[in-house]
Amino acid sequence: MAPDLSAKKICVIGTGLIGTSIALGLKTRGFEVFLRDIDHEALANSVKASGAKPWINETPDLVFVATPPRAAANVIRETLLAYPSAVVTDVASVKSAIFLDLEDLPTNAMARVVGGHPMAGREVGGAIGAQGNLFVDRPWVLTKTPATSDDSFAIVSDFVVALGGIPVERSMLDHDQAVALISHTPQVVASVLAGELLNASDSEVELAGQGIRDTIRIAGSDPELWTEILGENAKHVAKRLSNVAAGLESFASALLAGDLVRITEKLTAGNVGRERLPGKHGTGNKNHALLVVRVEDKPGELARLFQVAANAKVNLEDVRIDHSLGRMTGLVELSVASQSRPTLSEALEAAAFTVIA
Amino acid sequence: MAPDLSAKKICVIGTGLIGTSIALGLKTRGFEVFLRDIDHEALANSVKASGAKPWINETPDLVFVATPPRAAANVIRETLLAYPSAVVTDVASVKSAIFLDLEDLPTNAMARVVGGHPMAGREVGGAIGAQGNLFVDRPWVLTKTPATSDDSFAIVSDFVVALGGIPVERSMLDHDQAVALISHTPQVVASVLAGELLNASDSEVELAGQGIRDTIRIAGSDPELWTEILGENAKHVAKRLSNVAAGLESFASALLAGDLVRITEKLTAGNVGRERLPGKHGTGNKNHALLVVRVEDKPGELARLFQVAANAKVNLEDVRIDHSLGRMTGLVELSVASQSRPTLSEALEAAAFTVIA
Repeated sequence: MAPDLSAKKICVIGTGLIGTSIALGLKTRGFEVFLRDIDHEALANSVKASGAKPWINETPDLVFVATPPRAAANVIRETLLAYPSAVVTDVASVKSAIFLDLEDLPTNAMARVVGGHPMAGREVGGAIGAQGNLFVDRPWVLTKTPATSDDSFAIVSDFVVALGGIPVERSMLDHDQAVALISHTPQVVASVLAGELLNASDSEVELAGQGIRDTIRIAGSDPELWTEILGENAKHVAKRLSNVAAGLESFASALLAGDLVRITEKLTAGNVGRERLPGKHGTGNKNHALLVVRVEDKPGELARLFQVAANAKVNLEDVRIDHSLGRMTGLVELSVASQSRPTLSEALEAAAFTVIA
Repeated sequence: MAPDLSAKKICVIGTGLIGTSIALGLKTRGFEVFLRDIDHEALANSVKASGAKPWINETPDLVFVATPPRAAANVIRETLLAYPSAVVTDVASVKSAIFLDLEDLPTNAMARVVGGHPMAGREVGGAIGAQGNLFVDRPWVLTKTPATSDDSFAIVSDFVVALGGIPVERSMLDHDQAVALISHTPQVVASVLAGELLNASDSEVELAGQGIRDTIRIAGSDPELWTEILGENAKHVAKRLSNVAAGLESFASALLAGDLVRITEKLTAGNVGRERLPGKHGTGNKNHALLVVRVEDKPGELARLFQVAANAKVNLEDVRIDHSLGRMTGLVELSVASQSRPTLSEALEAAAFTVIA
């Protein structure tokens, strides 16, 4: 970590999952961090979870605005004006709408603001879900205004690195289009598909298995938060939704026309599209190998499996337990570095596990 | 198991995942099972995996037709005609199309056929993924033709129970409509959404996280198999796809109109729809409680976690590792019977794990 960062006074406004994780991550790394929230209970929880102090009247060098999206523009504005030497960044999921609201700010304020969006999160919201390493190895998009100074950008970027994140510069437009595709559209698709279950009988729904469960998992997201996010990125999301809707209508037509060739093409396109998803560290799965292991329905078998991996000193990149049965017994899929696969496979077989793929 | 079943000679035609799992499950439970497949290599693998014998010239009492869907109607027909006292059932994912093809069969043949669809499967296809307990506690839909005899139905139902499955009688229409909703439509939605990734730049796709990964997981399914399945259930699937397409268009309109109230309503409907999904044993999640545990990034921590659960004699109903970081460190979500939650929570905290929810 660059030595010039350590003297900086950092304030975080908004003490939900992201704000508390930033505070915790920076505290853990030795920085002085102060917290503010209009919700006193949330602030108290965040102070407890992060070890940071409430922000009373310190003058900050850097402010992370981690409020709900609808409040972000105003809080950024007030902070820039109240602290004329502070660099200010935010964590909102959409960038253009917020910064459009700030266009009337004077250049000396705009020079000190950097848009930010850490591509990290989890389902357990609030301070209780906070983790100091939430951002480690995850992309953290940074966007500039036309006036953002190189110094301001460098400071925010350095702190992203200090938190373990990977700073990724994008234009606001590129960012908003990207999240429309990879985050906002999947959210709406999952929600609309899940909503279709309201138009079904119990006897239909009770046959559901793991496939639909995964497909609509994120339909469990908070409607209020997502209304804000989607509302701020309406145009880009609407365009992608229309594409998907047209794709579904086209699929329906191919089905009704019995055009099996076209159906296979569309399903194959889905295979290829899915392969584009990045793996760990955004590097794709090319250096990783999968092992599928059968785990018998006996107490302690999962513990034994992970102990074998730990004893073999193989680092598990990913674990997926095959829930297709809705039960714990079944297949466990382990992702490891390609060169570790033979080691782990041998160790598992030596421990009487069946490696089936 | 009823004693009169044990004298039955059982043949399985088609030695993929389902056929081999049926053979293995019945062999394990002491039945005599014979296998047939036009693919000699698949047959050899299945014989090896299941311990059943190749079917040469035995006269079967019960035949499971576990071929690919497109072959099912013909194989059922040939089997009914070749073995005039055999009961025949299948495992195809769609029922009406197959049985429409068989309507010209004489009543004494139709009396001996029962449609079947085990609601179980996994991503690892073929004999290598076979498990004798694949069907345990899973619904297995059974459908009657107008001529199906009570005796035939009872025999098939008894064998489903012998395999650990839960026989669920449905009309063919009800079955096909149900799987259109809970299996076929999610498959197409995932495929079409994944296909949208082909219409994106690398810089967009590299920001993708766990949300879209789960949403399009089943887009990795086999296009050939799914073309067959979807083609046989075209009408019902097309109807649901049009509903989802209309729902997405309506969502896009609400976004463009800035109608945040309607957006929140639709997202909330998704929450409620998702809650309808059944849990383990199709009983819903009402008797289960969740524990979210933080697992530090140290070797052996996952092993230790599962060992604590095993030592506390708490049966894990489900496990989900929060992959939002794309890394192993993070949060592990454990689902347990409600009354076991305090026990497990105490045991974990005594073992220095942080239970955060």
